[in-house]
Amino acid sequence: MKAYVIQGGFGLDYVAQVEREIPTPGRKEVLIKMKAASLNSRDLGVIKGYYDPNLRMPLIPVSDGVGEVVALGPDATKFRLGERVAGIFTQSWISGDPSRGNWDTTLGSPLDGMLAEYAVLSEEGLVRVPEHLSDAEAASLPCAGVTAWHAIVEEGRVKAGDIVVVQGTGGVSLFALQFAKLQGARVIVTSSSDDKLERAKELGADYGIQYKKNPNWEQAVLEYTDGRGADHIVDLGGNTTLNKSIAALRVGGQISIVGVLSGFSVEGLNLVPAILRRARLQAINVGSRSMFEDMNTAIAHNRMRPVVDRIYPFSDAVLALKHLEESSHFGKIAIAF
Amino acid sequence: MKAYVIQGGFGLDYVAQVEREIPTPGRKEVLIKMKAASLNSRDLGVIKGYYDPNLRMPLIPVSDGVGEVVALGPDATKFRLGERVAGIFTQSWISGDPSRGNWDTTLGSPLDGMLAEYAVLSEEGLVRVPEHLSDAEAASLPCAGVTAWHAIVEEGRVKAGDIVVVQGTGGVSLFALQFAKLQGARVIVTSSSDDKLERAKELGADYGIQYKKNPNWEQAVLEYTDGRGADHIVDLGGNTTLNKSIAALRVGGQISIVGVLSGFSVEGLNLVPAILRRARLQAINVGSRSMFEDMNTAIAHNRMRPVVDRIYPFSDAVLALKHLEESSHFGKIAIAF
Amino acid sequence: MKAYVIQGGFGLDYVAQVEREIPTPGRKEVLIKMKAASLNSRDLGVIKGYYDPNLRMPLIPVSDGVGEVVALGPDATKFRLGERVAGIFTQSWISGDPSRGNWDTTLGSPLDGMLAEYAVLSEEGLVRVPEHLSDAEAASLPCAGVTAWHAIVEEGRVKAGDIVVVQGTGGVSLFALQFAKLQGARVIVTSSSDDKLERAKELGADYGIQYKKNPNWEQAVLEYTDGRGADHIVDLGGNTTLNKSIAALRVGGQISIVGVLSGFSVEGLNLVPAILRRARLQAINVGSRSMFEDMNTAIAHNRMRPVVDRIYPFSDAVLALKHLEESSHFGKIAIAF
Amino acid sequence: MKAYVIQGGFGLDYVAQVEREIPTPGRKEVLIKMKAASLNSRDLGVIKGYYDPNLRMPLIPVSDGVGEVVALGPDATKFRLGERVAGIFTQSWISGDPSRGNWDTTLGSPLDGMLAEYAVLSEEGLVRVPEHLSDAEAASLPCAGVTAWHAIVEEGRVKAGDIVVVQGTGGVSLFALQFAKLQGARVIVTSSSDDKLERAKELGADYGIQYKKNPNWEQAVLEYTDGRGADHIVDLGGNTTLNKSIAALRVGGQISIVGVLSGFSVEGLNLVPAILRRARLQAINVGSRSMFEDMNTAIAHNRMRPVVDRIYPFSDAVLALKHLEESSHFGKIAIAF
Repeated sequence: MKAYVIQGGFGLDYVAQVEREIPTPGRKEVLIKMKAASLNSRDLGVIKGYYDPNLRMPLIPVSDGVGEVVALGPDATKFRLGERVAGIFTQSWISGDPSRGNWDTTLGSPLDGMLAEYAVLSEEGLVRVPEHLSDAEAASLPCAGVTAWHAIVEEGRVKAGDIVVVQGTGGVSLFALQFAKLQGARVIVTSSSDDKLERAKELGADYGIQYKKNPNWEQAVLEYTDGRGADHIVDLGGNTTLNKSIAALRVGGQISIVGVLSGFSVEGLNLVPAILRRARLQAINVGSRSMFEDMNTAIAHNRMRPVVDRIYPFSDAVLALKHLEESSHFGKIAIAF
Repeated sequence: MKAYVIQGGFGLDYVAQVEREIPTPGRKEVLIKMKAASLNSRDLGVIKGYYDPNLRMPLIPVSDGVGEVVALGPDATKFRLGERVAGIFTQSWISGDPSRGNWDTTLGSPLDGMLAEYAVLSEEGLVRVPEHLSDAEAASLPCAGVTAWHAIVEEGRVKAGDIVVVQGTGGVSLFALQFAKLQGARVIVTSSSDDKLERAKELGADYGIQYKKNPNWEQAVLEYTDGRGADHIVDLGGNTTLNKSIAALRVGGQISIVGVLSGFSVEGLNLVPAILRRARLQAINVGSRSMFEDMNTAIAHNRMRPVVDRIYPFSDAVLALKHLEESSHFGKIAIAF
Repeated sequence: MKAYVIQGGFGLDYVAQVEREIPTPGRKEVLIKMKAASLNSRDLGVIKGYYDPNLRMPLIPVSDGVGEVVALGPDATKFRLGERVAGIFTQSWISGDPSRGNWDTTLGSPLDGMLAEYAVLSEEGLVRVPEHLSDAEAASLPCAGVTAWHAIVEEGRVKAGDIVVVQGTGGVSLFALQFAKLQGARVIVTSSSDDKLERAKELGADYGIQYKKNPNWEQAVLEYTDGRGADHIVDLGGNTTLNKSIAALRVGGQISIVGVLSGFSVEGLNLVPAILRRARLQAINVGSRSMFEDMNTAIAHNRMRPVVDRIYPFSDAVLALKHLEESSHFGKIAIAF
Repeated sequence: MKAYVIQGGFGLDYVAQVEREIPTPGRKEVLIKMKAASLNSRDLGVIKGYYDPNLRMPLIPVSDGVGEVVALGPDATKFRLGERVAGIFTQSWISGDPSRGNWDTTLGSPLDGMLAEYAVLSEEGLVRVPEHLSDAEAASLPCAGVTAWHAIVEEGRVKAGDIVVVQGTGGVSLFALQFAKLQGARVIVTSSSDDKLERAKELGADYGIQYKKNPNWEQAVLEYTDGRGADHIVDLGGNTTLNKSIAALRVGGQISIVGVLSGFSVEGLNLVPAILRRARLQAINVGSRSMFEDMNTAIAHNRMRPVVDRIYPFSDAVLALKHLEESSHFGKIAIAF
């Protein structure tokens, strides 16, 4: 089979296609013929060496993908041949609270990822995906979808009428927008692009703030909410956004810390405004299989469709990663096998 | 002004129209000119003496109503003349958990209710109502609306994809159906009438069970859910329904105990099935002002409209109560002033 | 090895000692040489055929026990030889919410239990036990301990200053008393025996109600709490106690439905008092491995010791079960191997 | 009566004793003859102009105090003459979630505080205090006690066996230590002083870290917890402590952001470690009357005694504030009237 590996160094130049043996499933494992993969900024972080400077190489990158069950290990009983499944991001986090050990089992680092024509995973690390989704749509769920579900539904407990702010229009943001709308909330989206704000409104966003024209977007949120502030803010930016998120929050509101797109470290986090808002800052790190299953139920019932920006063929996987690097996408970038 | 009072005995025969002075608002009180009232089965219970055999008479019955602010007490500052407001059911339950003392401040017993042309209430015991609602729609919120919101959203934390069972098509049930849909859930409605099930589906119900034809409705729920059971059941029946509700529940599911329409006492509640389902039975007693306000926000944003079965003129208030007694209504019965 | 089995019929007469091969651990399994077992009323229910009329026979009864790891399966890595472990009651309920399938993996029915000199269990179904406990004390944890922890700490969230009512002085009740005291609560114990109440006070109980002399124990609770009612009640009785538990509860309080000692079915459960108290009735069905581990941490740190009523030798296991049947014990009945 | 006021400028030099009329209670108000006040670092912040550069002057400073009810307003019915009461910090936050408006009603800015021989407060803004406490002990509750209760019990839900880290030995820290012990937790205290660590251990602390000798106290926490990290950390330092708190936290743990003693702004907050720990950072801003009442119940039942560092006479109130400024105290600094 063909597979991409990170080998010899960090950076996109060190992602190369290689030939590998098709793996054989062990006892409770399943062989999957990949149909589509989907990219997350974490995948770039792994490739560039930000996540683990001591990365075990060669490593197959990319955590998210969907495929067809084509062989079963001797004791594998959960799935049937032909079923379409996705791997869960944290292979050992089934339900309840995670522990530190769970992080050693994430796909695409330290475990091999999905950028290969076949993959073998434990049957406990797989879920069926909603039937109405295309392969590319289904491939977008494991990391971006579950992260947004965790933030909005599990920890956020967003309810009808709440005001939710979503930063930007990348994969997690659009999922957060869609889940917040499923739960009856009002959603404010921020973006650097008028065009993307229009498209966010087509997806259900109630209000858009163009933060290039209007860099004090937190003031715009306060105005939109008559000074009260938002109930929930999904913070993707980190460094440049977190103080603004706190300023835009209502008393008793919650910020989901999901991304660090503008920098890993917040220079000058103001604590007094956080205390005056009795703010809760909840860091989110993808989620459990149980959350993934609940999310799939919600998506299937509501016929929700994830937003796919563009689909690249498997042979152009590096181009797809470069497209992700440019940050001009709207929704998810997918790879078709 | 004209008012109805319970006087001389219990039963609808003892509800009579009388002439009263228009009351004067005290310090932090407000005078309201009533526009519409709405009936709940509790109102009948009060009139028939089931709630309080030692009812203080004469008492103005009916807890729910909406009116216009026409005069302000000396220190009343929360509302302006002309605003449309509803009284909250439990006048002293503002926020957080209730205490026993709060129950001494419910409208329509022991406090005077809304079946009068004017009412005086503390400004703390009032909320503004969503503008897009008619008077009759807005009058339906305080008891039935808040009860359903409390069950589905506050305690139930119903989320997208959940399966919610709602018993019957009275006021609370239809609100529960509508709120569960706002939160992205799937809703099963039970009814004795095919016609009402059709109308429930028009409101968004995903599945209807006609329990006259199909008395083992709990089996129908299990079949619809592939044997898993419902996530949340709003139990209105009490005696004849609670064991069935438990049987229809998923492991870890929740039953909101809201009504006792088939009897105050459950003859033979089976505990073992409840334990095997790790069931939570949560009794609901209307809700706080804070819940009412959150509900109004959700209703206003989603342009939700309560279901009004029929509107009677004030002069026919006793007829309206008789209509409620027949239990043939779909949604709320209102009275226009 | 020697083992007891249920065979040929239901009832204590059909519990017989047999000779068996010492089992061999499979891949991720562990062989345990039993040191002590502990009895629960559920064990009697299984033996008498109340739990499963179609019980697979012969079945080794008794869910709870502790032993020493004496052999490891080929892939078993969690434990070392010589460690002392207990089996978790629901072998597949690791963390988070349970599902219906988990109930197919409970020890002592439908899976073989601990009344044998050796047992093989999956390493995922075992926990280490606190070192300061004797074998008999440690054996009392899996069912009674975890049930009480689940009720008081996980679902009950009992906090310092709360008033907790515990019914009787059996295994679960005394654990609930001890855990409630660990969390700083005040505990009221009910018992038919003055002597047992004294011993409960030595364990930390703040108040005792002798319900033979004082059958309206719910009134005594209301008096002790100045009319406010208890914050949390652990209901063991079911039929004869549940209405009293509701009557003794504060507004917003919680009842843990744990046992059905006085009957599986409640004849005449009054719903109106439950609604007026906004009562939560939470059925408890033992708990997860994660709860077991948290409980062990709490027990170890606080040097808490479970109460063992009496220890029988393995050869007298049937006598021990008869002692349980008499319901005169205080705490747990154990069997030493 | 004598009172201290901030007048003419910011800083301790502008705190002066003045003569005032004894105030008269309004309708639902109560006149209190002060017995003791207690100082918080917030009081210094108000005096120095950090909290409100536009402070209304003259203002009576200091939020916390206890006194005796000596006169009742015409409609005041909650208290009797002679009862000992404390004012609640946020006069209008009774129960449930706060709103922005509540912050306009905090004592000692913007409302007048307790550094006067008499005070008038709404009866809704008062609570009885536990009888076994001295006046100075009782005066320490409103701000420091309620903040710690909110952090440890209400939001933290600290349970038996949890590991809690408390920074320093000021008022909030020692309350947090004591409440965590009441709930059965293990407590680690950090301090710059060996002597203070000894005294913290006498109060129940399980482990002390002297951070002058051992500046990497987060490593010491990780070692003490076998690499797992603490369940809950009460962060008092802000700037110099928050990154260390995150590093010392277990996966899924919680940090209560309570103080900013080392700076309002965190220079370089690292988000990636927070995400990898799925950390929750919960800002705490004192608490509601309902929390205060629950705390009092817990303190009364467990006979807990707050730690008073030193008591100054009313005439030396400015000296007391200077003592607070030096940060050498252990527990609370009080003022006796």
